[in-house]
Amino acid sequence: MLAVHVLNGPNLNLLGAREPEIYGSETLEDIRSALMARCESEGLALVFKQSNCEGDLVTWVQEAAAASAPIILNAGALTHSSIALHDAIKGARAEVVEVHLSNPQAREEFRHRSYVALVARGTISGFGATSYLLALEALIAGAKRKS
Amino acid sequence: MLAVHVLNGPNLNLLGAREPEIYGSETLEDIRSALMARCESEGLALVFKQSNCEGDLVTWVQEAAAASAPIILNAGALTHSSIALHDAIKGARAEVVEVHLSNPQAREEFRHRSYVALVARGTISGFGATSYLLALEALIAGAKRKS
Amino acid sequence: MLAVHVLNGPNLNLLGAREPEIYGSETLEDIRSALMARCESEGLALVFKQSNCEGDLVTWVQEAAAASAPIILNAGALTHSSIALHDAIKGARAEVVEVHLSNPQAREEFRHRSYVALVARGTISGFGATSYLLALEALIAGAKRKS
Amino acid sequence: MLAVHVLNGPNLNLLGAREPEIYGSETLEDIRSALMARCESEGLALVFKQSNCEGDLVTWVQEAAAASAPIILNAGALTHSSIALHDAIKGARAEVVEVHLSNPQAREEFRHRSYVALVARGTISGFGATSYLLALEALIAGAKRKS
Amino acid sequence: MLAVHVLNGPNLNLLGAREPEIYGSETLEDIRSALMARCESEGLALVFKQSNCEGDLVTWVQEAAAASAPIILNAGALTHSSIALHDAIKGARAEVVEVHLSNPQAREEFRHRSYVALVARGTISGFGATSYLLALEALIAGAKRKS
Amino acid sequence: MLAVHVLNGPNLNLLGAREPEIYGSETLEDIRSALMARCESEGLALVFKQSNCEGDLVTWVQEAAAASAPIILNAGALTHSSIALHDAIKGARAEVVEVHLSNPQAREEFRHRSYVALVARGTISGFGATSYLLALEALIAGAKRKS
Amino acid sequence: MLAVHVLNGPNLNLLGAREPEIYGSETLEDIRSALMARCESEGLALVFKQSNCEGDLVTWVQEAAAASAPIILNAGALTHSSIALHDAIKGARAEVVEVHLSNPQAREEFRHRSYVALVARGTISGFGATSYLLALEALIAGAKRKS
Amino acid sequence: MLAVHVLNGPNLNLLGAREPEIYGSETLEDIRSALMARCESEGLALVFKQSNCEGDLVTWVQEAAAASAPIILNAGALTHSSIALHDAIKGARAEVVEVHLSNPQAREEFRHRSYVALVARGTISGFGATSYLLALEALIAGAKRKS
Amino acid sequence: MLAVHVLNGPNLNLLGAREPEIYGSETLEDIRSALMARCESEGLALVFKQSNCEGDLVTWVQEAAAASAPIILNAGALTHSSIALHDAIKGARAEVVEVHLSNPQAREEFRHRSYVALVARGTISGFGATSYLLALEALIAGAKRKS
Amino acid sequence: MLAVHVLNGPNLNLLGAREPEIYGSETLEDIRSALMARCESEGLALVFKQSNCEGDLVTWVQEAAAASAPIILNAGALTHSSIALHDAIKGARAEVVEVHLSNPQAREEFRHRSYVALVARGTISGFGATSYLLALEALIAGAKRKS
Amino acid sequence: MLAVHVLNGPNLNLLGAREPEIYGSETLEDIRSALMARCESEGLALVFKQSNCEGDLVTWVQEAAAASAPIILNAGALTHSSIALHDAIKGARAEVVEVHLSNPQAREEFRHRSYVALVARGTISGFGATSYLLALEALIAGAKRKS
Amino acid sequence: MLAVHVLNGPNLNLLGAREPEIYGSETLEDIRSALMARCESEGLALVFKQSNCEGDLVTWVQEAAAASAPIILNAGALTHSSIALHDAIKGARAEVVEVHLSNPQAREEFRHRSYVALVARGTISGFGATSYLLALEALIAGAKRKS
Repeated sequence: MLAVHVLNGPNLNLLGAREPEIYGSETLEDIRSALMARCESEGLALVFKQSNCEGDLVTWVQEAAAASAPIILNAGALTHSSIALHDAIKGARAEVVEVHLSNPQAREEFRHRSYVALVARGTISGFGATSYLLALEALIAGAKRKS
Repeated sequence: MLAVHVLNGPNLNLLGAREPEIYGSETLEDIRSALMARCESEGLALVFKQSNCEGDLVTWVQEAAAASAPIILNAGALTHSSIALHDAIKGARAEVVEVHLSNPQAREEFRHRSYVALVARGTISGFGATSYLLALEALIAGAKRKS
Repeated sequence: MLAVHVLNGPNLNLLGAREPEIYGSETLEDIRSALMARCESEGLALVFKQSNCEGDLVTWVQEAAAASAPIILNAGALTHSSIALHDAIKGARAEVVEVHLSNPQAREEFRHRSYVALVARGTISGFGATSYLLALEALIAGAKRKS
Repeated sequence: MLAVHVLNGPNLNLLGAREPEIYGSETLEDIRSALMARCESEGLALVFKQSNCEGDLVTWVQEAAAASAPIILNAGALTHSSIALHDAIKGARAEVVEVHLSNPQAREEFRHRSYVALVARGTISGFGATSYLLALEALIAGAKRKS
Repeated sequence: MLAVHVLNGPNLNLLGAREPEIYGSETLEDIRSALMARCESEGLALVFKQSNCEGDLVTWVQEAAAASAPIILNAGALTHSSIALHDAIKGARAEVVEVHLSNPQAREEFRHRSYVALVARGTISGFGATSYLLALEALIAGAKRKS
Repeated sequence: MLAVHVLNGPNLNLLGAREPEIYGSETLEDIRSALMARCESEGLALVFKQSNCEGDLVTWVQEAAAASAPIILNAGALTHSSIALHDAIKGARAEVVEVHLSNPQAREEFRHRSYVALVARGTISGFGATSYLLALEALIAGAKRKS
Repeated sequence: MLAVHVLNGPNLNLLGAREPEIYGSETLEDIRSALMARCESEGLALVFKQSNCEGDLVTWVQEAAAASAPIILNAGALTHSSIALHDAIKGARAEVVEVHLSNPQAREEFRHRSYVALVARGTISGFGATSYLLALEALIAGAKRKS
Repeated sequence: MLAVHVLNGPNLNLLGAREPEIYGSETLEDIRSALMARCESEGLALVFKQSNCEGDLVTWVQEAAAASAPIILNAGALTHSSIALHDAIKGARAEVVEVHLSNPQAREEFRHRSYVALVARGTISGFGATSYLLALEALIAGAKRKS
Repeated sequence: MLAVHVLNGPNLNLLGAREPEIYGSETLEDIRSALMARCESEGLALVFKQSNCEGDLVTWVQEAAAASAPIILNAGALTHSSIALHDAIKGARAEVVEVHLSNPQAREEFRHRSYVALVARGTISGFGATSYLLALEALIAGAKRKS
Repeated sequence: MLAVHVLNGPNLNLLGAREPEIYGSETLEDIRSALMARCESEGLALVFKQSNCEGDLVTWVQEAAAASAPIILNAGALTHSSIALHDAIKGARAEVVEVHLSNPQAREEFRHRSYVALVARGTISGFGATSYLLALEALIAGAKRKS
Repeated sequence: MLAVHVLNGPNLNLLGAREPEIYGSETLEDIRSALMARCESEGLALVFKQSNCEGDLVTWVQEAAAASAPIILNAGALTHSSIALHDAIKGARAEVVEVHLSNPQAREEFRHRSYVALVARGTISGFGATSYLLALEALIAGAKRKS
Repeated sequence: MLAVHVLNGPNLNLLGAREPEIYGSETLEDIRSALMARCESEGLALVFKQSNCEGDLVTWVQEAAAASAPIILNAGALTHSSIALHDAIKGARAEVVEVHLSNPQAREEFRHRSYVALVARGTISGFGATSYLLALEALIAGAKRKS
């Protein structure tokens, strides 16, 4: 494992400004910095991207998998509607940890189904920005167990 | 209120040509002209856009909200499937009037659910191009009441 | 078009007193006055009624249609349960604009189905008392286009 | 059996004018006349009523049952929504033949459930005005079998 | 109209023996006799058949329609499951009156859907053997109106 | 608390005659008398009404609430279908105790949903005429606790 | 009737501490005391128990029924999931009054189904601790009517 | 017919690498070559595109329809979720043959609904790369029949 | 591959006469002739049958599979209801191409489920009689690839 | 009890060849032999039949019941779809033991509903050919208990 | 196979007293005795337990499986709700024959789903106490076939 | 934060032996040891329990909450069925992190609903024994942020 790809879906660029009572006040840049610090201590590169477009995320998942890089994926609202993203993960045999800032199961019913969870290695949700860091720990722990 | 953003979703570029028995024969340019005339009489700027891509609409909603501009949104088919657009409106606290040329409730069942309506200030549907003008009147009336 | 019939369903007589955080503080009389002013400027008569009884509304829709008068209909709770009202509109070929003060799509699920919308020309919801005025504008605009 | 009560629900007063392609061109008065002729030949009285109000129909069912008179009931749209009418028939142990001009099973899904059928002796639907006459024949045949 | 085809589905051969509290004590032969008497008085031939096999009923419907003969159809349990019978009626443009001895709407839920009703001219149910006779009256009345 | 309004919906006028195996043999007048005796001992007035019409019940709920009087409401079959009654209770902020003679949860499925329960203070069902008296005790106990 | 068994299900031991805005501030001991006082005035013994375990409640229902004692049952969350408790009541022919502090019909949808109500004599819900006292009154009134 | 547009949706760029046990080992380029050979023999041009973005496919459908060119459309995962693509085909009156490599009806339930099929001329699924060639044959046969 | 079995279900004997606006004007004999011509050019035998009876189709599928012959199956209405046909295909490991003249996905909802598709190699629908010929091409292409 | 009728539905003639990993390798003839041996030891006749046609099974159930013979019924796929078979058993008051080789509850969801179980005395499933023998033991034990 | 574990769920201790019209008059002790007699003739030990507590049954299933003993399990009401029992059987790879005294498929709908059947070897239901004996025969037959 | 309570539901005592292809080969004792090591390094006490009984888990959640201790809860199968556990967490305002070894969203549909998730702070699933350690990290990180 040489690099970790952290892919963020629609509206996550608003983080910090958007509904802080649900998502907390940390920005996406704050999360990137915290992940970078931990990656550097493990000698890992970090690829960190955000897009509002489903097509970009599908392509990025394909690219990460082609590079054999594990993915931390917060697909935002696409989690609940994108079969294309599901197919990208499954088709490219990508290793994905699904993360969410809040807990979708405790919100509206249309957020209860996750097409990502069906093909993810694991899911971490509800810990705000810490969800990303826990996902990174999970990947590091997994990598150590294999080597 | 200095500018009104009118955002149009997939296939609305076909307006006039596409299924005139349902949508009428006016083009999107006709609608833009009519709205512009009314905006000018109120001293308002008009931003008028169309895209077939969900990601563009999410981004444009974020931009309009960042500029504190009210939005007239005809999300087309995305009305019924885009949780990302729903989240953009809610997360950015955008002021949105939802419009439709026809009445989705009287069409196929998969057009009955509106993710936009859940977070819109109001909805106007069924009056063809006039739906947009009534939405503009609603915004003007609302702005006058506040001031 | 010589007269507009504005028909109001159950509990709308409570308007202003009832749940002002949802419906606003304007009374049904305020709405009647505002509509009357606009009707007079257009040389139109106004018939304005309210009833808590489904049967009255069915009969009034029949009467308005028999007089070839357009209808602005706020059926209140009957919107979601009255097939009889639906049949009256359809059977008498009445021209109906459906209005709501709040946005039923954003409230309890049992308010999501509208039997009126299936046979209405258009729907305006969510603008409080302004919903009625926009409906009147829609009728006037429609009448002008025909003549 | 001395009298037959024929009770008609909402919008049946429009018969003949209303959607003739579905309901035929005969009026409710035509139906009353045809039934009267047949009743007279059998020495039966005829009570024939119509109301747009559910409460009236509930009361009329109670009254007919109290007089031990059989009922021919076309509840119109209330067929599909009125549990109160169902309870009136069941509670008063009324003998009811359900009639419909068209065939509700072949129309919109919200017309498929009949609260009347659950407590009716039988159902006749789809023969236009003839449905009423067949119902009267069914009652006469039943009465003859008992005597 | 020279002949009437009366087609009976599965288990109707048991009539009289089978669940008399639901279906009455008359046998299928009793019904045939009663129909024959009435047919003779009108100068009509009668074709009367029963089968437990869906395929036979499909073929018989096709044959009756090819002879331009109206059909009285009691499809028994196939009413609720046979799309093939539905297609036969619709495809051959057969004129069908659906009959039932009891009222399926008041029995188990799996008897509530009728694939026959969707393409039948009308339905008569709940009057025991009299249902067939009323169906015959309906056909005779319809034929007289046309001639 | 000076008066208690006891409002009864459709078919409750039949009480005693109607299905005694379900509802018991006491009449509505018996219930009124028993309630009156208890009200007098507490120095309370009693308003006791019945109607088969939804509109009457909506109006009576509004009137009782306008007089700040608590309501004992047996809406009969309207319990399960009337959103208008629900809105009247909620809109007028009426204090309502829902009563039923039998237990709707143990009867047909279409009696399982209660629009009244959603906005009632409490529900008492299954004790026949005693349900009303228990409701009165509940109101008296509540009033004593407040004073 | 010599003794009343009051059986309480999971989490009712937390009463008073747990969500007082929904359940009030009275403790289970407060309820026991109030019931005891009323029982003593009627010369009745009181058995009062609580368990978080479904098996205990099933056994206790069996024991109360074996002693011919009536039961006041607040099954808590098991109301909505325990078919075993339902079977215990039905199998042992226990006389059960179902009580709830709050009104389950007005809470989450998974609290709408009651397996207890299907086999209870009656239900009282929504009056906080008073629900238990009303249930006791209902049992006393029932016992007096029989004797 | 001068050109055929073959439009491919999300993840089809992975073809050959992605889940060969389901989709076979042929690449998208292999399919393009095979189609080109057959087009040339018929004197037809071939437009062959792939995108992971719904918006691109909507636009390409509009463009093909504007050029009166028939479309072979494998919308991939968008088949099951994109109302926008459905609207593009219907609005532009495009002639579309829907193809799939595997048989969606035999896979997960969320692949059973096809918004494309509702507006396609026909569907061919389950034959791997051969599905495309059969679709081309279907278009050629159709074109010959018209000319 | 020495012979192809083409099996046709209920009502396909009516082809040409039956609903030509949906199914086209070609008869089943026309289809047989066209298939025969193509079979002869490939040196293949053709077995071509039709039955209105589910049992015949089950038996014919078993026989074809016992002879290792591929099957082109248009099960008509049985497509949507026959689990027995599904079991025959699966149990006998028959190679089946499912064909339909029209597109069932674009018709009534009860035609959306296909028990055949779950066990078929592929499906071709919507091209009228051409559907059969394309199915034959698919079988020939498949056979060539294997040899 | 002089004879036992063992009736087998569609595809059971394939037993042994068909999906042995689910149904085992014994043939229907093996099962007949084993049942015959046990019948002879009890002095019972054995009627053993198989058909792929629903109509045959309906008729055979009627015949067995007319002879007062108990039935061991493996209806195969018809278990899940045949209301006619259900009606035959119920109408003829046949004594039926339902058997299955595998356990339908553990297979696809469309095999979970059994119309046979609703009217069978008991069900034995999952023991392969032994299921039939256990059913025979159940009938013998029942017959001994009665005599 | 040295011992058979027979595990009984909630309310089966009431057997004989409880609803004899459904479950028969034999007690659980009667069943134990009958099973013991048959076990002794085969040289098998018998472990026979009952509990009203889901946790006990889960533990007992684990213990039986740890001892490689086959299980006859009548989980009573837990059959329909206990995923934990399902997991115990599956996780411990226990060999389970599911038994029921009555036929759950012919009772209330909430008894139609069996979590036990999904992981049981077979199911026997509807033969009262004989169900247990047949289950024992099934285990003995299975053991003989293996040895 | 002085102690962490780790509560394990039904069948988790089988860990390591039970379905290792799903749950991995680590035992519950292995998990306890790993958590203990990390707790000691942070100066935290560890309470670690397992039960097959819902009632125990309800009580333990209450106790942990009474001690203001955070909870790591793997409720096993009770996750999907226990409203009582949900109520315990909510009523006692317990701080709960939900963990699962595998990912329930990717298994059978009856494992998709989590009553725990609705009231948990966060969820971690799919990482085997590492899920517990990540949960502990999440609690430690949360505690540090607060202090």
